Amino acid sequence: MTTGATTAHEDEAMRRALALAAHGPAHGPNPRVGCVLLDADGRVLGEGHHEGAGTAHAEVAALADAQRQGRDTHGATAVVTLEPCNHRGRTGPCSRALLAAGVRRVVVAVEDPDPRAAGGARTLRAAGVEVVAGPHRDEALALTRYWRHAVSTGRPFVTLKWAATLDGRVAAADGTSRWLTGVAARADVHRRRATADAVLVGTGTAIVDDPWLTTRDPARPTEPLARQPLRVVLGERGLPAGARVLDDAAESLQLRTRDVPAALAALAEREVRHVWVEGGPTVAAAFLRAGVVDEVVTYLAPAVLGSGPAAVGDLGVRTVADVPRLQLVDVARLEGDVVVVSRPVPPPVEESA
Amino acid sequence: MTTGATTAHEDEAMRRALALAAHGPAHGPNPRVGCVLLDADGRVLGEGHHEGAGTAHAEVAALADAQRQGRDTHGATAVVTLEPCNHRGRTGPCSRALLAAGVRRVVVAVEDPDPRAAGGARTLRAAGVEVVAGPHRDEALALTRYWRHAVSTGRPFVTLKWAATLDGRVAAADGTSRWLTGVAARADVHRRRATADAVLVGTGTAIVDDPWLTTRDPARPTEPLARQPLRVVLGERGLPAGARVLDDAAESLQLRTRDVPAALAALAEREVRHVWVEGGPTVAAAFLRAGVVDEVVTYLAPAVLGSGPAAVGDLGVRTVADVPRLQLVDVARLEGDVVVVSRPVPPPVEESA
Repeated sequence: MTTGATTAHEDEAMRRALALAAHGPAHGPNPRVGCVLLDADGRVLGEGHHEGAGTAHAEVAALADAQRQGRDTHGATAVVTLEPCNHRGRTGPCSRALLAAGVRRVVVAVEDPDPRAAGGARTLRAAGVEVVAGPHRDEALALTRYWRHAVSTGRPFVTLKWAATLDGRVAAADGTSRWLTGVAARADVHRRRATADAVLVGTGTAIVDDPWLTTRDPARPTEPLARQPLRVVLGERGLPAGARVLDDAAESLQLRTRDVPAALAALAEREVRHVWVEGGPTVAAAFLRAGVVDEVVTYLAPAVLGSGPAAVGDLGVRTVADVPRLQLVDVARLEGDVVVVSRPVPPPVEESA
Repeated sequence: MTTGATTAHEDEAMRRALALAAHGPAHGPNPRVGCVLLDADGRVLGEGHHEGAGTAHAEVAALADAQRQGRDTHGATAVVTLEPCNHRGRTGPCSRALLAAGVRRVVVAVEDPDPRAAGGARTLRAAGVEVVAGPHRDEALALTRYWRHAVSTGRPFVTLKWAATLDGRVAAADGTSRWLTGVAARADVHRRRATADAVLVGTGTAIVDDPWLTTRDPARPTEPLARQPLRVVLGERGLPAGARVLDDAAESLQLRTRDVPAALAALAEREVRHVWVEGGPTVAAAFLRAGVVDEVVTYLAPAVLGSGPAAVGDLGVRTVADVPRLQLVDVARLEGDVVVVSRPVPPPVEESA
């Protein structure tokens, strides 16, 4: 994409487009996108954002908004958080819609990594539209993190979550673990779960803990939220008929395999972009060994157990020099508990010789 | 102590006295104290703070400061962060010194818990001096935390420290642990160690890890700081003659016992107010089982080991309901690592019937 100078109106419009995009759902197969249309004097003609699969893309929503207000989009500039798509999916290609509306300039925060959808910029340029890189690329990347990962690697973004004591125990010696962490930490889990497309545990956890795995407001723990992530149980053992994870509060899926890449491929088939893995130790170790953990979210309760299972089973690491390093992304206090978010250290950028 | 109204000059003087007190050493047998003398119009006559055992107490230092400047202290107000002492230790009683100087009013942030030294307020009042409780009690308590604990319980304040991975491992399967945490976390350990009177490990750690246990500036790791905490090794096994902990970089002491209360009594005998316990798991568990841990400082490295020793050995806790709860005091990011400080939940305040 051409790195071109953008106007103050366009920069302001991009901030607005990002704010609009954030109103879209964090889960689901499609990225969050916002769009603002400007006339030649930088006045807003229309704006829109994508509200999830099956609804209009942001560009089309913004064009419809302008039309509804009787505003002429010929010669307009479209400020979009993501490169306009070039393919006919559930809706038509946005590049064509922008051309049809007479848009002459497109400012884009970040390119489309989806091989099926990319090329919007090329199509637009071929038709004589000026396409330039706009500001706020990092925010636009963060807004589409899971989707971007999924479409560029072909597998869901994997968050591994556990809650442990200061000494790393996820349960007491007798297996009990309710409640190590307090209300604020548990609310944070539900808030983060709600942004995922799927929540996954192993058969061991499904059988022993018998969790619902639904996403709830901890203030009303018996009422699952309207939108529920897919509940996934990984492993070869059968589940008892009355297992809570099989109730009708949300969709459930058992993947009868221990092969993590195969399980992720099956989830990718279902357009799962982000899977939230809640362990136990065997499942956590399997995902880490497979090298597919993109984020670790650890809740820490200020208590010391001294015995009981650790969060992660054996990884085959024998010496400290071989430990896979993560980088700390965020640490926050949640009332009396702590949440730590880490991600793998990104590979060094290769210098071209 | 009477809760009396204090003037704006006195409140300002107490802030100054606390700032002065903080210049004193955090370690050592005596508390950190600051004192500011005011005339009847609230002008400063003199100020001082205690610089450690064997030097003048804050009140005496402030009186000397006033005298040096040729200022008359008759009718003055003394603003002190701690109730003036009433006993003749290494120096004379401060209550007497204030009386002799003609001080007519004393404002005190917090009372003296030391049964040998207390009674300064009573002595002053008996001589007709007005003694009132001043502002900033909480800061004055925090400034004397370790000393206050030691003189009121008869044993040192115990900080238990460890550094672990996100999954609670303090070393890899082969025992290696250098370096799980980064430079900033290690510098924080040395900074905190330097505020302690003693640093303690078990014989296991002393033999296997062969640490120096000295306090150093991590930027110059081969040069121990001038003032060193007492190095203490706890346990019945003998140490090899060449053990680093026995070198001449600092004083060393082996306590040939496994009895934690006996060890703490021996340290109290030596006027150790604050002992910094660095484990390993057996020592950590012994201190926790003895119920004498007053603070837990945990360093977390964003890495996952999956095997290797946990921070704390068996505590005999079988079920989550029985886990001793701590309360989170502080959490902070140290470059790429995290430090979490917790303390036992204080017992509920008894209501008098």
